[in-house]
Amino acid sequence: MTVHLKDIAEYTGVSIKTVSNVVNGNFARVSAEKRQQVLDAIKKLNYQPNVAARHLRKAPVGVIAYAFPDLSNPYFSDVGNAITAAAAEQGYTILLDYTRSEREKELLVVKGLRPHLVDGIILDSHTLDVEDVPSDQTKGAIVLLGERLFGAPFDHVLIDNVAAARIATQHLLSLGRRRIAVIGVVEQCQSEAPSLRLQGYMQALNEAGQELDPLLLANGGLWHRADGAASMRYLLSLDSPPDAVFCFNDLMALGAMSVLHEAGLRIPEDIAIIGIDDIEDGRYAHPSLTTIAPDKEKMGQCAVSLLIGRIKGTRTQAPECVNVPFHLCIRKSTVGNAQ
Amino acid sequence: MTVHLKDIAEYTGVSIKTVSNVVNGNFARVSAEKRQQVLDAIKKLNYQPNVAARHLRKAPVGVIAYAFPDLSNPYFSDVGNAITAAAAEQGYTILLDYTRSEREKELLVVKGLRPHLVDGIILDSHTLDVEDVPSDQTKGAIVLLGERLFGAPFDHVLIDNVAAARIATQHLLSLGRRRIAVIGVVEQCQSEAPSLRLQGYMQALNEAGQELDPLLLANGGLWHRADGAASMRYLLSLDSPPDAVFCFNDLMALGAMSVLHEAGLRIPEDIAIIGIDDIEDGRYAHPSLTTIAPDKEKMGQCAVSLLIGRIKGTRTQAPECVNVPFHLCIRKSTVGNAQ
Repeated sequence: MTVHLKDIAEYTGVSIKTVSNVVNGNFARVSAEKRQQVLDAIKKLNYQPNVAARHLRKAPVGVIAYAFPDLSNPYFSDVGNAITAAAAEQGYTILLDYTRSEREKELLVVKGLRPHLVDGIILDSHTLDVEDVPSDQTKGAIVLLGERLFGAPFDHVLIDNVAAARIATQHLLSLGRRRIAVIGVVEQCQSEAPSLRLQGYMQALNEAGQELDPLLLANGGLWHRADGAASMRYLLSLDSPPDAVFCFNDLMALGAMSVLHEAGLRIPEDIAIIGIDDIEDGRYAHPSLTTIAPDKEKMGQCAVSLLIGRIKGTRTQAPECVNVPFHLCIRKSTVGNAQ
Repeated sequence: MTVHLKDIAEYTGVSIKTVSNVVNGNFARVSAEKRQQVLDAIKKLNYQPNVAARHLRKAPVGVIAYAFPDLSNPYFSDVGNAITAAAAEQGYTILLDYTRSEREKELLVVKGLRPHLVDGIILDSHTLDVEDVPSDQTKGAIVLLGERLFGAPFDHVLIDNVAAARIATQHLLSLGRRRIAVIGVVEQCQSEAPSLRLQGYMQALNEAGQELDPLLLANGGLWHRADGAASMRYLLSLDSPPDAVFCFNDLMALGAMSVLHEAGLRIPEDIAIIGIDDIEDGRYAHPSLTTIAPDKEKMGQCAVSLLIGRIKGTRTQAPECVNVPFHLCIRKSTVGNAQ
């Protein structure tokens, strides 16, 4: 039996307009409680969108959506640029869908309920769990990016986060730094990136016979510049401050650097800084920021080509997890003018 | 008579698939020549999309597209964030459409040919002329942002560029600077921003009785960090280098600052720097970047509310050009530790 919007309205006792708002991702005028009722009913009644858009979607439209969590982080702009270029090469257009890390918006993306006219989706999720996503690829082609939804039945493109973090930490150790802090720990984080990067850091310390000082593990918040700045202030307040800081992304590293400048400390002489992402901002910073550079072009090409394979049906094997390469990019924030 | 894709195919002698690719913005597999033929035929035959999407579009879907030119410039991310927040307040979802400043993509946006399921479009165009856009609002609600398409029959939201540039220049003059360069001039630019900002600069010099030295007008290219860096190198190579530089955006200012650091020059003691945009990057730079800060929240709110008025038919008056406020944000790159 086909389930319609009105069935959900009847089942939940809310208006069809409200159900429609939820299905289209327009939450602003829907209370959290009603929203949840509708989302629960969609799941329970197994609602499938049954509108003209659904019919259209059966014919290829040459459009792919890239759903990403944070428009303020240039890392996602870089990946978006790479995806857009790779898609254009293959004759596809990209629509950017900015989910603001909101669980409901990400849910609608994977359930194909957002009013997109797209053949497939490249999703960097920050909130979903495996049970939230369709159990097979037949409900729409999806490729995952980022450190979440491991084990979901989709091709997944990312870097080896543990290895990347180990190499970043080893670089600081190789320069003789012995009190290496991290910035970017997030308790109960929805993405696994913080814990994977923390693992790599701990592995490197362990291999070097260094003790872990829990005081040197600083919070990451939203991984923005302001979070890096706040955590750097905390680290400077310690009785025994660090001589190097490994920031789990470049944005936090840039925030941390601004605090060191304010405090009159020298980078890297007093404190060396390394990040991850290789955003352009870090290349032009003073001093230029040492970082782990994921191959974002490859990431975009790989995600697009896996997705198009699924869309066209030429790729039928079981989903794979594809690691793209990264490299340590040494700049002045760790080695000074030696660079 | 309704014109179909096959009519365009017959008229131009290309395949229906090729016409479809052009209409959907998938240019990668279409030669420039064929693309132009198809676009000319679309115009000549007055093709209107006549697909299910067209029917759907008659019913509101609660979605607005924000079409913007440059994903590498955080200014557009900031505006995108502001638009997304303002739209959510009103119960609308935003789709981001990244046109890469490509004329054909922008054309498809304004002609409603892109496969969007949207009620209206907020467009920051970098390539279109007034004759490219529909002659009335009946073909879809559009609100313009940015310094182009003046005189088009749409509501238009922007800052007073001439006043902004005059105030930036006056700030440098008030600090006693007398050789003030600009970075950001673009010959035959498709946007009017460079020429409007140049006007404001010249007005301020004129009011202060300062002569204009054409050698101090440096190129802007794509207005990226690399362009600011290249032009700063040029300015430093002059026999009589500047004592201050007004960059037409913050990204170029950050590029210019990196070159001053490399050259061992002090900011602002040797050369003061000011930008426009107030991107976060500049707030965390070393030294922090003085800038002209457009009220981007207001810009987003204003564009969204004008557009929703057109979509709902509650706004019927003639199109208006709305100036949003801006303010001079003084930081260390012009006044040093006085700030």
